[in-house]
Amino acid sequence: MAGSSFGDFIRLTSFGESHGIAIGGVIDGFPSNIEIDLETIQHQLNRRKPGQSAITTQRKEDDEVEFLSGIFEGKTTGTPIGFIIRNNNAKSKDYSHLKNNFRPSHADFTYTKKYGIYDYRGGGRASARETAIRVVAGALCEQYLASKGIQITAFVDQIGTIKTEKTTTQKEIVDQTIVRCPDKAIAEEMETFIKAIRKEGSTVGGSVKCIITGVPIGLGEPVYDKLEAQLAKAMLSINAVKGFEIGSGFAGITMKGSEHNDIFNPDGSTKTNFSGGIQGGISNGMPIEFRVAFKPVATIMQPQKSINSDHQTILLEGKGRHDPCVVPRAVPIVEAMVAITLCDSYLKWKAYQNS
Amino acid sequence: MAGSSFGDFIRLTSFGESHGIAIGGVIDGFPSNIEIDLETIQHQLNRRKPGQSAITTQRKEDDEVEFLSGIFEGKTTGTPIGFIIRNNNAKSKDYSHLKNNFRPSHADFTYTKKYGIYDYRGGGRASARETAIRVVAGALCEQYLASKGIQITAFVDQIGTIKTEKTTTQKEIVDQTIVRCPDKAIAEEMETFIKAIRKEGSTVGGSVKCIITGVPIGLGEPVYDKLEAQLAKAMLSINAVKGFEIGSGFAGITMKGSEHNDIFNPDGSTKTNFSGGIQGGISNGMPIEFRVAFKPVATIMQPQKSINSDHQTILLEGKGRHDPCVVPRAVPIVEAMVAITLCDSYLKWKAYQNS
Amino acid sequence: MAGSSFGDFIRLTSFGESHGIAIGGVIDGFPSNIEIDLETIQHQLNRRKPGQSAITTQRKEDDEVEFLSGIFEGKTTGTPIGFIIRNNNAKSKDYSHLKNNFRPSHADFTYTKKYGIYDYRGGGRASARETAIRVVAGALCEQYLASKGIQITAFVDQIGTIKTEKTTTQKEIVDQTIVRCPDKAIAEEMETFIKAIRKEGSTVGGSVKCIITGVPIGLGEPVYDKLEAQLAKAMLSINAVKGFEIGSGFAGITMKGSEHNDIFNPDGSTKTNFSGGIQGGISNGMPIEFRVAFKPVATIMQPQKSINSDHQTILLEGKGRHDPCVVPRAVPIVEAMVAITLCDSYLKWKAYQNS
Amino acid sequence: MAGSSFGDFIRLTSFGESHGIAIGGVIDGFPSNIEIDLETIQHQLNRRKPGQSAITTQRKEDDEVEFLSGIFEGKTTGTPIGFIIRNNNAKSKDYSHLKNNFRPSHADFTYTKKYGIYDYRGGGRASARETAIRVVAGALCEQYLASKGIQITAFVDQIGTIKTEKTTTQKEIVDQTIVRCPDKAIAEEMETFIKAIRKEGSTVGGSVKCIITGVPIGLGEPVYDKLEAQLAKAMLSINAVKGFEIGSGFAGITMKGSEHNDIFNPDGSTKTNFSGGIQGGISNGMPIEFRVAFKPVATIMQPQKSINSDHQTILLEGKGRHDPCVVPRAVPIVEAMVAITLCDSYLKWKAYQNS
Repeated sequence: MAGSSFGDFIRLTSFGESHGIAIGGVIDGFPSNIEIDLETIQHQLNRRKPGQSAITTQRKEDDEVEFLSGIFEGKTTGTPIGFIIRNNNAKSKDYSHLKNNFRPSHADFTYTKKYGIYDYRGGGRASARETAIRVVAGALCEQYLASKGIQITAFVDQIGTIKTEKTTTQKEIVDQTIVRCPDKAIAEEMETFIKAIRKEGSTVGGSVKCIITGVPIGLGEPVYDKLEAQLAKAMLSINAVKGFEIGSGFAGITMKGSEHNDIFNPDGSTKTNFSGGIQGGISNGMPIEFRVAFKPVATIMQPQKSINSDHQTILLEGKGRHDPCVVPRAVPIVEAMVAITLCDSYLKWKAYQNS
Repeated sequence: MAGSSFGDFIRLTSFGESHGIAIGGVIDGFPSNIEIDLETIQHQLNRRKPGQSAITTQRKEDDEVEFLSGIFEGKTTGTPIGFIIRNNNAKSKDYSHLKNNFRPSHADFTYTKKYGIYDYRGGGRASARETAIRVVAGALCEQYLASKGIQITAFVDQIGTIKTEKTTTQKEIVDQTIVRCPDKAIAEEMETFIKAIRKEGSTVGGSVKCIITGVPIGLGEPVYDKLEAQLAKAMLSINAVKGFEIGSGFAGITMKGSEHNDIFNPDGSTKTNFSGGIQGGISNGMPIEFRVAFKPVATIMQPQKSINSDHQTILLEGKGRHDPCVVPRAVPIVEAMVAITLCDSYLKWKAYQNS
Repeated sequence: MAGSSFGDFIRLTSFGESHGIAIGGVIDGFPSNIEIDLETIQHQLNRRKPGQSAITTQRKEDDEVEFLSGIFEGKTTGTPIGFIIRNNNAKSKDYSHLKNNFRPSHADFTYTKKYGIYDYRGGGRASARETAIRVVAGALCEQYLASKGIQITAFVDQIGTIKTEKTTTQKEIVDQTIVRCPDKAIAEEMETFIKAIRKEGSTVGGSVKCIITGVPIGLGEPVYDKLEAQLAKAMLSINAVKGFEIGSGFAGITMKGSEHNDIFNPDGSTKTNFSGGIQGGISNGMPIEFRVAFKPVATIMQPQKSINSDHQTILLEGKGRHDPCVVPRAVPIVEAMVAITLCDSYLKWKAYQNS
Repeated sequence: MAGSSFGDFIRLTSFGESHGIAIGGVIDGFPSNIEIDLETIQHQLNRRKPGQSAITTQRKEDDEVEFLSGIFEGKTTGTPIGFIIRNNNAKSKDYSHLKNNFRPSHADFTYTKKYGIYDYRGGGRASARETAIRVVAGALCEQYLASKGIQITAFVDQIGTIKTEKTTTQKEIVDQTIVRCPDKAIAEEMETFIKAIRKEGSTVGGSVKCIITGVPIGLGEPVYDKLEAQLAKAMLSINAVKGFEIGSGFAGITMKGSEHNDIFNPDGSTKTNFSGGIQGGISNGMPIEFRVAFKPVATIMQPQKSINSDHQTILLEGKGRHDPCVVPRAVPIVEAMVAITLCDSYLKWKAYQNS
């Protein structure tokens, strides 16, 4: 209830600050007797971690996950899976200038006011470093879902004003470009743009599209836990996310019902998919498709006016090692939150099969 | 967990189908000793109910709420507030042609497949009739929040491609036009457009903007129950909603960090509000501002091809009494879901004050 | 979280005061497509209701349940089952002498202090009338469990100091005596004793034993939601309950490990059942056996000194129609709470079968 | 929902097996800005840990807690407090003889059947080692409650048939004897008895009484989350617990209402306390008093017949280092679970003060 847990059946509880001793998580309710593929988990962590390419921050974090429980002789035991990732490369002095200083559009101000105390180093609990925990849990869930035929693929479809309509459902195609856009020509444009933005010390936003295939008909719980509502919550819980749209999304506003309605094929699939794979809060067997909007990273390398905890005006200089655009690294985070959400829905659904 | 409850501290549990005996709800955790203003509750119900204007369905529902518990001598007692609304005007025969027939982009198909049985009359549980329950609970919560200085105002800012940037934080101004758009000139255009759409037997989408003022700094629970994540879930749980954006939203994608950052004033407020009143998942004292996208209503008055439960092709004719555009009636529903969400957050926050 | 909901998968939410318009409940998560046996539900309600025999209160309540939703053409639809029971026979003037007066060992004092307001009529929300709601939900769950081979039988095994070791797993045998004790000779003694107690205007306690057979191995969630922990909570949530013991219970204190250990038979069953059917929080396939202690009813027909809301000393006279011993009527309530608890556990367990 | 979390507002999530790498926990929702007294935490851990006296197991565990997050410069930050305790002294080979063998009245059988896999070393997840995590969380909560004037004291009041009626509300008095019984003469008898039991290779049960003073009026949430129901669940979630009784408990069965009713003093306190400090599920300001029954430890040093996972009969010899009586070590565990339960209730209550 205090916000560090996600999910009912599969419940991830996370802890840890950016520059504390370690971040970690507990996954409760994961099915037993599942062989764990540690390589896939590390692979998703690597896709998220900083320093992986020319367009991400050059900060290095090993992001090596240590499992402490819930796995025995390589298999899950049905008991909670506890794990930690040590914060080895935390350069806390990089942040000492932030003590008592509130960075614009960061959480420094709100955490300080809410809790009356704030571990400001590296953004503390508000840092996107916490998302590494989601990626570990998500990779586990993704593995389980894959065994049921459910595939989750996210990719970048827009950076600034550069946008593609090309899609894919293969992670390998996504990873062919460092911006993680399946449209190679557009990806090149995006890369050039991000580099230019970095040169001027600024940052830029973008969006991630996610396509989930193989979803059985029936996931999602009307009326308040509609599947799209749960996905929306999952997405808006990710740092820097400002918007979510499913199926036709905001473009649906301008459509007529006669154009928007998804006409059935005899097999129950639909000719179009403006619904985005969900009707009445329940998956309909079509691919689930949604988009997530990310704002530009708040940490810029330009001086900015701000205030400190005494509400005095200060001048902040950009320091540290940061991403000009966080969106390519957000791809595995989106996939992770989808995986946890769907794994939870899947087990709920499974409980009622042949009831 | 089966989806009919919303909130932790303030928990609304709803029940009821469109054409069953009654719909109803239980509000648990509502503060005690609060004098209940029944008129305001009825007023919000009236703003939602069908048949209220020339651009809504002409179906008549009394929507008279009967409170069964939790109120004693006009005041809340701290015990659960149970209430029902009888379904008096249900013309079930209007729907008998839908038995075993799946309407495109409705929940007929998914409910039938998920549960193996479906009360198809009037859309059953999937009908937006359920939202009347939300409005009752929301009006109670809104009253409590108002006593704390928190004001919630939603209004229509777009119908089809007709859009305004004009805003308001006064419900009276919203209600000056039947489309509930605070921009009178634009509202007139919208009304004309909706009437034209109705004439052709189709429907149209739109969007609702919501502004919440007077929110104390500190509401929202990082990291998974960020305030925007909870609002997103609340909004996507409303029928026909396809998108949610807060602050800069999808437009933020195209902005640079140097433009997007909300620079502080010495008093802690910010010069711009691209964050939409929330930073790091916690309210920052600025107005919370978000937009919600509604798809065009799926029920159209034109014949459509579809399938039945035997997966045979059928021809559906539009029947019954329906809205060409549901968005004006959605305004009090948006307000209601915000009110429940914030009331819940407010009590959580209150628990930790001077802890 | 405010206490009016019970269960996760199967969640009962109840509302209503003793002398309000109605009491009611919502059952969310009940499996769909289950034919409802209304007679069994009414039968359990009748076993609980006042006025049923010479040793219960002569107060008459019809206790006729009206289902409002979630059932279509005689079958559950998977959507929330809402229902109410009208309070027809509420003689509120019987209680007007209690306004602002705190009865000893009742909830008048604590409700008034906690909420600052109290619907004192008939004990308001604290009245055992609320348990009728549990019985309705329990009867539904019991029906589902019975279809899985799980049988729940509760009976009275002690009234005052009169105790039997005789057990049964048949409700019909339980109902052969009006005290609901399967030992006819002992039951007669109990009946005589209760009548004598009533004559002197006092009340007496007792205990209920419950035996559940046919439970599959594997129900219960270690470590905090051990099956016995959930049952304990379920029992202590019943009015007037002061104790719970499972298997050997308090008698186990005086045993040695070498006597207490349940030795396995080759088929996995055990020769003794001091564990009470649960080991490590998980059902082991043996009958689940526990006992519940009920205090004597607080409402007596003798004058008592007390205080009022101004903390002045008052003299309370016993008025109204009350039970000299509530334990026989508690039998179906115990069964109901077990049924909801086990139905919830069963569905959780089912979700992981062949995962 | 899978059972490894406890509490709503204050939520402890635990993980870890007896002989895995580490056990650990996450406390979410703990108030911020509280200075942490690490010594008290370690002190409670030491009261629980094995090897502390002549009547406990001679197995040595350091039980040194490492905090990983949620504490900054000695104070809580309001973010989740993650911590681990390494399993340094795990002698797994002591348990290799248990592989595939089911010990009587242990969880080996049920875990294996439920999950299809079992980390049998040292009892795995079912080991009471997990309770060290509860003690850490409980000590934190106890510190917070103490600052509000709430004091929790548990002690041993019965071992086998040796029983005392003497009580105390001072931990120092409890710790004056190694059996943790405040009655020195009786304690000596208990000690002698335990030593004799150990000599014969058996074990013995006992009970713990707990008294909580300084509880404000109003904690607890009717009707399903009555304070006694939550305490019962908390207690029955502790390993080896078979019973719970509050106030008059099972003895109340034999009392008349006219004897049992707690008559008010003018200040709202009561002359007797058969209610055990709770009426209608809500604390009434009197001391909360309850008792918990512990069965004799299942691990005995005598040979026992049993079965293995192939359901073949085997002979088990007692090996390893075990407690002849676990009850003295259970005292801080009982206190811990009370502390978490009450801290949770306290914050819920606080949310509604002056609402």
